[in-house]
Amino acid sequence: MIKAAILGATGYAGAELMRILSGHPEAEITYPASHSYAGKKFSDIYPGMKGICDMVLREDDISKAAEEADVIFLSLPAGLASSLVTKEILAKAVVIDLGADFRLHDKTTYETWYKTEHHAPSLLKEAVYGLPEIHRDAIKGKRLIANPGCYTTCSIMTLYPLVKNSLIETDGIIIDAKSGTSGSGRGEKLTSLFCEVNESIKAYGVTTHRHTPEIEQELSEAAGMDIVLQFTPHLVPMNRGILSVCYARLKKGVSDEDIKEAYSIYADEPFVRLLSAPPETRYVKGTNLVDISYSVDKRTGNIIAMGAIDNLVKGAAGQAVQNMNIAFGLDETEGLDRAAGCPF
Amino acid sequence: MIKAAILGATGYAGAELMRILSGHPEAEITYPASHSYAGKKFSDIYPGMKGICDMVLREDDISKAAEEADVIFLSLPAGLASSLVTKEILAKAVVIDLGADFRLHDKTTYETWYKTEHHAPSLLKEAVYGLPEIHRDAIKGKRLIANPGCYTTCSIMTLYPLVKNSLIETDGIIIDAKSGTSGSGRGEKLTSLFCEVNESIKAYGVTTHRHTPEIEQELSEAAGMDIVLQFTPHLVPMNRGILSVCYARLKKGVSDEDIKEAYSIYADEPFVRLLSAPPETRYVKGTNLVDISYSVDKRTGNIIAMGAIDNLVKGAAGQAVQNMNIAFGLDETEGLDRAAGCPF
Amino acid sequence: MIKAAILGATGYAGAELMRILSGHPEAEITYPASHSYAGKKFSDIYPGMKGICDMVLREDDISKAAEEADVIFLSLPAGLASSLVTKEILAKAVVIDLGADFRLHDKTTYETWYKTEHHAPSLLKEAVYGLPEIHRDAIKGKRLIANPGCYTTCSIMTLYPLVKNSLIETDGIIIDAKSGTSGSGRGEKLTSLFCEVNESIKAYGVTTHRHTPEIEQELSEAAGMDIVLQFTPHLVPMNRGILSVCYARLKKGVSDEDIKEAYSIYADEPFVRLLSAPPETRYVKGTNLVDISYSVDKRTGNIIAMGAIDNLVKGAAGQAVQNMNIAFGLDETEGLDRAAGCPF
Amino acid sequence: MIKAAILGATGYAGAELMRILSGHPEAEITYPASHSYAGKKFSDIYPGMKGICDMVLREDDISKAAEEADVIFLSLPAGLASSLVTKEILAKAVVIDLGADFRLHDKTTYETWYKTEHHAPSLLKEAVYGLPEIHRDAIKGKRLIANPGCYTTCSIMTLYPLVKNSLIETDGIIIDAKSGTSGSGRGEKLTSLFCEVNESIKAYGVTTHRHTPEIEQELSEAAGMDIVLQFTPHLVPMNRGILSVCYARLKKGVSDEDIKEAYSIYADEPFVRLLSAPPETRYVKGTNLVDISYSVDKRTGNIIAMGAIDNLVKGAAGQAVQNMNIAFGLDETEGLDRAAGCPF
Repeated sequence: MIKAAILGATGYAGAELMRILSGHPEAEITYPASHSYAGKKFSDIYPGMKGICDMVLREDDISKAAEEADVIFLSLPAGLASSLVTKEILAKAVVIDLGADFRLHDKTTYETWYKTEHHAPSLLKEAVYGLPEIHRDAIKGKRLIANPGCYTTCSIMTLYPLVKNSLIETDGIIIDAKSGTSGSGRGEKLTSLFCEVNESIKAYGVTTHRHTPEIEQELSEAAGMDIVLQFTPHLVPMNRGILSVCYARLKKGVSDEDIKEAYSIYADEPFVRLLSAPPETRYVKGTNLVDISYSVDKRTGNIIAMGAIDNLVKGAAGQAVQNMNIAFGLDETEGLDRAAGCPF
Repeated sequence: MIKAAILGATGYAGAELMRILSGHPEAEITYPASHSYAGKKFSDIYPGMKGICDMVLREDDISKAAEEADVIFLSLPAGLASSLVTKEILAKAVVIDLGADFRLHDKTTYETWYKTEHHAPSLLKEAVYGLPEIHRDAIKGKRLIANPGCYTTCSIMTLYPLVKNSLIETDGIIIDAKSGTSGSGRGEKLTSLFCEVNESIKAYGVTTHRHTPEIEQELSEAAGMDIVLQFTPHLVPMNRGILSVCYARLKKGVSDEDIKEAYSIYADEPFVRLLSAPPETRYVKGTNLVDISYSVDKRTGNIIAMGAIDNLVKGAAGQAVQNMNIAFGLDETEGLDRAAGCPF
Repeated sequence: MIKAAILGATGYAGAELMRILSGHPEAEITYPASHSYAGKKFSDIYPGMKGICDMVLREDDISKAAEEADVIFLSLPAGLASSLVTKEILAKAVVIDLGADFRLHDKTTYETWYKTEHHAPSLLKEAVYGLPEIHRDAIKGKRLIANPGCYTTCSIMTLYPLVKNSLIETDGIIIDAKSGTSGSGRGEKLTSLFCEVNESIKAYGVTTHRHTPEIEQELSEAAGMDIVLQFTPHLVPMNRGILSVCYARLKKGVSDEDIKEAYSIYADEPFVRLLSAPPETRYVKGTNLVDISYSVDKRTGNIIAMGAIDNLVKGAAGQAVQNMNIAFGLDETEGLDRAAGCPF
Repeated sequence: MIKAAILGATGYAGAELMRILSGHPEAEITYPASHSYAGKKFSDIYPGMKGICDMVLREDDISKAAEEADVIFLSLPAGLASSLVTKEILAKAVVIDLGADFRLHDKTTYETWYKTEHHAPSLLKEAVYGLPEIHRDAIKGKRLIANPGCYTTCSIMTLYPLVKNSLIETDGIIIDAKSGTSGSGRGEKLTSLFCEVNESIKAYGVTTHRHTPEIEQELSEAAGMDIVLQFTPHLVPMNRGILSVCYARLKKGVSDEDIKEAYSIYADEPFVRLLSAPPETRYVKGTNLVDISYSVDKRTGNIIAMGAIDNLVKGAAGQAVQNMNIAFGLDETEGLDRAAGCPF
């Protein structure tokens, strides 16, 4: 059994990780930790877990975690992970960071968008960007895995085949993304209150959202050239789910067959489904799946590629477990659901 | 592997059964059937199941089902199951009926409340009321299992310890229950439209809801005397979940210890949790659990006992699988979830 | 024009009052105040009011308010109003308190249920309980009007005709009430977050909710005898609305005609509608209406009386304006909506 | 008083029109009609209107309507209005069509996108496109007013100032729009069921939505050149509201001042608000307002212009009344709300 520590176990992503790992056949939680709730039972904070995980939460102490675990999951505010992870920690445990600190290869880009100092720039080159469908081989054997963001997972996976195969113009890409409210976290903020979210929709972080450089980094790497794109997230009155609707101009001469061929890169992926109709977030709720489809508009010359994930599973905790499975040589799907209830 | 047939596989309860059985380690679906969608793939009707269950749906033919399955699940409109099930069918397969046709022991009561003829009164005595926590031993070895209703499962289990132990007055019991909208089914009805349900709450079936006699039958049996009670259901703008809030007058001299002792009947039940705070439906969403708590009001002399379930799982498909597990001698929890995501 | 001050203008009830008064043909807001947001524009806090009410918020200073207004609305935390209102203030302005401080006639009952000191017990006898349909004449000419609570308005009005006319047994009354989330206010609490409320229902304050003694006081007065009853509120995943479902045993010999006659007390009320089907909160959303219906169950001997209101309008701001209209001799319906959009 | 007929009074748009006209100080409904519910009271279909509008619904007979009304509102399925309206009808009454039949100037374009025959092509040139903020003068004195669509009102008004002033490149415009579920109407369709809409988001009508040519027509006219653009609508789990997020490349040399100047065209519009933060649909719910804001992204060279309306008010019934007010020489704001409750 793989021994797992979770620092930040009581945020939504951390708690989902607790739930998934509680049911994982090859892993056991040995060090669940929460700065806010240390000393309390996890099931006192999440009563739905009573009888399933009643472990007492410990302090967010990465050194102790490294003594008691083979893998440490970090689900912490931006800037904190980079101040905790060291070579010594990595020598003792694999670290899978659900936060943003090790996702961007470039320290300056990180500090520009996150407006906070990066405390461990020397570790950036140790980290792998943990998007298995694109970097699977690089993940194997790595000690520091940067788990991708929710919007980014969805957006990158939707556009990657088009970019990788040079089927679209790399300027002018627009990603209009929509997220359920759990993406805003469990903090007690006015803008997260039921009555402030329910029965409304809005864009936010227009032109400034931090997931932008992460998407650009990965797509630029796939394209072999710098990509600058427009990313606009929205808040949707639902608990879970992300939908990325991506607009790009098809290159001259690109055929339907070319596009189909490009997306066939996902044909054998256990967590990707190619659909003929636009994806709906409900169909991936609670699962680690990515549903993708696209439409070509002959009138405009655009392709509209659409992807849907569950932001807390494939967009956070599920993908973290997928990365753990890869890092430890397990079956990649171990412990991860693929069937969504309907209606859920 | 147990071979399973499902007639009525595309209603919400039937589809949830398809989902649960698709992941069940000891069962396989051999005969999925739907009158409305015969000939189509299940995953065309429920795209969330693409890649998980792509079986082609067959006609609702119970004779063919009996040839190809060890267990037949029926999820059909009232009155239809009683016209399909025969001794010959039961000789070939165990039948688990998610509908109401075999729940009430008394034909006249059935016909009064359901306003339709019962087509197989002779089979009523062959049937067992499939509430495992109360009738577990009787379920073993039975060929015809009447899976309880959603409101009834929740309400009976909440009140049973009090009634069984004569702790409450049996007159004057009031059950005020609330259900998510999936309880209304997948029919294309005006009253089920999003805009007609969302942002509102209402009572319905006041004094006339068909689950009333079912609750009365089971509690009367537990009490050893006839119980007549008030049951009022409500429609809540959410997908899943039932909350039963039950009011009764405590008998003179009943102590807190007596009540605690009575509910300890559930102490070893894998699917029952006794809580200290009022249950919330979200904590059982997607699971086969029943969460129960109670408050005693010294001012009024009442006990308020509250139970919560997922109407499509413990209130339908999950309990049906629990019954199958019992009937076939499997571990009762096989294939059934106990951990709800949060937020889900 | 009546000059109006509002202290606590940025809570949900206060803001609704700002909205209603902004459109009132005979009133104008002269002193909008908010402790938290003094100095800011109201429309910066509530952007929906941009262009409709851009007034700058002032400090919650009741003395200044009394100088600049004919009527002062208080929408403040429990215990605060009783420390602010004095005979001097009342000499200058009519005070309509949306909080609980002056609703209960008995200081001890207040302090027992609210667990806070009452700072102006001598004013309790100056106050009138501002439920116009019951105390209209007493409201006229009063300087201190205690605006009823949301659950209480709905519950009292639903049961009043039955109690007043001695049609039901006064012991054993049960009120099972359901509220939208705006009833929890605009405070930044974990339990009010979208993801903690959405897709779930729960009871809360079981046996202990503060609206209990208020309902008991008014119904006891109507009955001419002490009534002790059971009141259980629930949180519903919707913005607005309260549904009170009230259970009582009909007295022997009470006829349908008696009941109909009793409810005819509301026949000429501009804000009460008697329905034949169970009320739905959506039909009163945004209005000052109370919708009421009832069912008699011959099997159990119970009457189930049901009422629905908008908790922020008839349950708070709308009723406050109705009281102002009465106190100042205006048409009682002035400035108050009666038509709900559908779907809203 | 203006006498008003409504054909199609029981769909969501028609019913909202009934509600608004019921409260209009200068109009009265004389001929409410519904094919499905003729002979029933309006308030039996919409119980929220009991006591406010209890008129009996009549047959959808435009000739009778023309005898009894000064203005006829049509809220009918595509293709029906064009078969009903004639020069004779227009001689007797002003017709305001909430449907699509008279919005497109070109018969072929209509038939291509709507896939149905146009029955009155000769009337197309009699019709004015009833978007008051753009065509106010042309509306005055017209007998046939084509009330714009919901998505189109929102999208056109958001982009119009940029296009009219040649500030953006006219190729490559992308409109990603989101709508509440009332936009799907009151038909009993599977895809409109609560459980099929709730807790999910999806795009639909990708590349094919019928509002596309309507937006293109109006923006082309404003630009003085043909515009082909990408329009993608989404279904959001809420009752009301449309958000249009529009992406375009700013032309070289366009300054912030130029943009501000362009939008100042709306400065005196009673129903347009220019915001500094992204609009939220809740702030215009129930009102006839359009909220607009924009962000310029120096990184990408794009402008992101965002507009929000209530699809049933400014997107349908409210704008229809605004058009009536203009056509009959009333104050344009008569009978129309501008203040949204919060939370609503």
